[in-house]
Amino acid sequence: MRMVDIIMKKRDGGSLTKEEINFFINGYCKNEIPDYQVSALLMAIKFVGMSRIEIFDLTEAMLHSGEIVDLSSINGVKVDKHSTGGVGDKTSLVIGPLVASCGAKLAKMSGRGLGHTGGTLDKLESIPNFKIALSDEEFFSAVNEVGMAIISQNNNLVLADKKMYALRDVTATVDSIPLIASSIMSKKLASGSDAILLDVKYGEGAFMKTKKDAYELAKLLVEIGTRFNKDTRAEITNMNEPLGMAVGNSLEVIEAINTLKGHGPKDLTEICLHSASTMLLQAKLFKTREEALQKLQENITNGKAFEVFCKFVEKQHGDVSYIKDISLFPQAKHTYQVHATTSGTVKQVKALEIGTISMILGAGRKEKDDAIDMASGIVLNKKVGDKVVSGELLCTLYTEHDDYMDIVDRLRDAFVIDPTNKKVKLQLIAAEISKDDLN
Amino acid sequence: MRMVDIIMKKRDGGSLTKEEINFFINGYCKNEIPDYQVSALLMAIKFVGMSRIEIFDLTEAMLHSGEIVDLSSINGVKVDKHSTGGVGDKTSLVIGPLVASCGAKLAKMSGRGLGHTGGTLDKLESIPNFKIALSDEEFFSAVNEVGMAIISQNNNLVLADKKMYALRDVTATVDSIPLIASSIMSKKLASGSDAILLDVKYGEGAFMKTKKDAYELAKLLVEIGTRFNKDTRAEITNMNEPLGMAVGNSLEVIEAINTLKGHGPKDLTEICLHSASTMLLQAKLFKTREEALQKLQENITNGKAFEVFCKFVEKQHGDVSYIKDISLFPQAKHTYQVHATTSGTVKQVKALEIGTISMILGAGRKEKDDAIDMASGIVLNKKVGDKVVSGELLCTLYTEHDDYMDIVDRLRDAFVIDPTNKKVKLQLIAAEISKDDLN
Repeated sequence: MRMVDIIMKKRDGGSLTKEEINFFINGYCKNEIPDYQVSALLMAIKFVGMSRIEIFDLTEAMLHSGEIVDLSSINGVKVDKHSTGGVGDKTSLVIGPLVASCGAKLAKMSGRGLGHTGGTLDKLESIPNFKIALSDEEFFSAVNEVGMAIISQNNNLVLADKKMYALRDVTATVDSIPLIASSIMSKKLASGSDAILLDVKYGEGAFMKTKKDAYELAKLLVEIGTRFNKDTRAEITNMNEPLGMAVGNSLEVIEAINTLKGHGPKDLTEICLHSASTMLLQAKLFKTREEALQKLQENITNGKAFEVFCKFVEKQHGDVSYIKDISLFPQAKHTYQVHATTSGTVKQVKALEIGTISMILGAGRKEKDDAIDMASGIVLNKKVGDKVVSGELLCTLYTEHDDYMDIVDRLRDAFVIDPTNKKVKLQLIAAEISKDDLN
Repeated sequence: MRMVDIIMKKRDGGSLTKEEINFFINGYCKNEIPDYQVSALLMAIKFVGMSRIEIFDLTEAMLHSGEIVDLSSINGVKVDKHSTGGVGDKTSLVIGPLVASCGAKLAKMSGRGLGHTGGTLDKLESIPNFKIALSDEEFFSAVNEVGMAIISQNNNLVLADKKMYALRDVTATVDSIPLIASSIMSKKLASGSDAILLDVKYGEGAFMKTKKDAYELAKLLVEIGTRFNKDTRAEITNMNEPLGMAVGNSLEVIEAINTLKGHGPKDLTEICLHSASTMLLQAKLFKTREEALQKLQENITNGKAFEVFCKFVEKQHGDVSYIKDISLFPQAKHTYQVHATTSGTVKQVKALEIGTISMILGAGRKEKDDAIDMASGIVLNKKVGDKVVSGELLCTLYTEHDDYMDIVDRLRDAFVIDPTNKKVKLQLIAAEISKDDLN
């Protein structure tokens, strides 16, 4: 078998066999197939696509290119969630304690942020002393005792994805649904949970720009998970404006805490309750969504969800005094309030722009190895549908940089205000997909 | 400027600017842009294509990536020819002496064979002591004195093509008309001749499988040459059966000698006279094709063309006694005659299969660094349109290998014989293109 023939076959519109896919993935992982052949194949896949069978085979080959985590020492049903990434997406920090407070187990491996999107690990590291690297034993015992743990991805997991993702990033081959799907699912399957919930975001701040693309990806993810005998479900959610009010690392942790205490923003609360109830159904802890939602609401009100969050932070060596008193989180050197210069109804809060500005303010990374500022970011005061009067506060920026004034106009322009006051409302959860929706 | 943005732009259907193309070619030649980004871009080009302007810019960038040969010390009009390659294509060995005998100058750099196609350099090296590497001075003085010289390509020519061709070969990105055109024309333009004739072959033994693709490529090549102010013309010729009767290195040299003496196969003679007359018109040595053809015919009859060939071989240190007495060429260890087992009219002589078998017999290279046998190959006795009676000789194979019997049936099957005797005739020259044919 020769890699050049595999590339040619795909280039000419053919379907790769399981043997060809295994040859490619194994050869690449063993450094027997060079990057330049892999990038040519990836670009051909970007253009030609892959059949369902090819995608299953690719996912399987990738899954077996590294260690597969064995979570059997954790009692109960292990549920995992994955979001395709967005701006202000701190849902894991809320959903984890919510589902754990109801008896499900979340043994989650998470990632860092890049570009305009934030990463759960970065947010957690804004809590002093929080450790994202635990030994297997610490990880399993944390999940058993607290009900949840969030750690960095084991380096031995899905070697093929690690190599291939770095290559895709510099060869403009990230944007391919078969490659995205096999990358996500090989990692989720290797992480060893029993059930997986995927939050596929669409819109201008998301990776998938259209609902149609998000739907296609979500369906594919559910198909792959189902094929591998995992209860896999997906929700398609709106990322045309940031989720919640806070964008930035410690700012988002604070918002997650508020949400767990019942004082969170409406959209964030809604999406977290919905996801958490789905996961509880997947864990078979409740018969109906209504029962699950009722219990979740109860655990917010009675403080149990927040209590899990505190234990989780403590177990991962974080300083829990910050969680109990959010005023301890250091403030950024500069804060600046951005006010509206027109009146009307907010028609749009450009998520991509807010994410990008937040990155520029110091909250995110332009390049993989950039340092980030924990206290930097943006807190919104207005969201889509809100009425605004000229002079009113639109948002506050937080930054360590001294030269932030250039960014203020950009930030103001991220709010599109309609003077005609036409009513507008974003639909937060566009669709849900489970195996029953596959044809 | 970032290479990943250039790849993305092309991937998304965009046109690259001159600056982007220069950035890519210069960066690649300086090893600042890695192979894996170049192969991804090449694959995107394969799918998206390139505009005329992009192809001109790419050709120019490649042309300037190495030395440009200065042929000004050679007197007279320098004409060059290039064939896209086929089976049994020994036309350069015939056309060179023909045009030189009429006063044109051929200062040709040639290549080696790969796969089912032979290379002019390999054929020439079947003449004992023939030197394909000459110093610039030797090369120029050979062309001035003899009227022609054929040498290996200067290593400093078109560095970008050298790097890129090796990469294209292993990444299934050879087969892209913009890349083929810029590769051919950057080399031809860097070789420094005043006029260029391109023989674009189509059919099953050629790189371009269809007349339509060959026409598209030919038109593009003429457009590029014209853009760079060279008299550039193209002919589109048939490669559905081998050209002439001989396939193999010394076998083809012998056939070229016979053709120069007026005893060549009909198709080879026809195409060589046609190409040579076109080149004489390009060199402005004759007013009409008829006059040129008359002179060429004269120089075959009076021995002048053959005389040039002898001087050319001598000047490049080859043993001219072989040319004067072709019986001196060593015979292969084994010869085997393949006879027909049916009767009828030859409908097809599969060029690709004949070329491949010839390679297997030892006349060609599977991989770039394979050794080849000079005396191996095939001599056909029947061509398309010929009548065959069962038991008649179809062809003779020549090889150094002892285990050639496996190949005999394949060789017989390469001749498709129609028992209904339906008349069939291949059209040898399908079209000609000059700048007047561009729209």
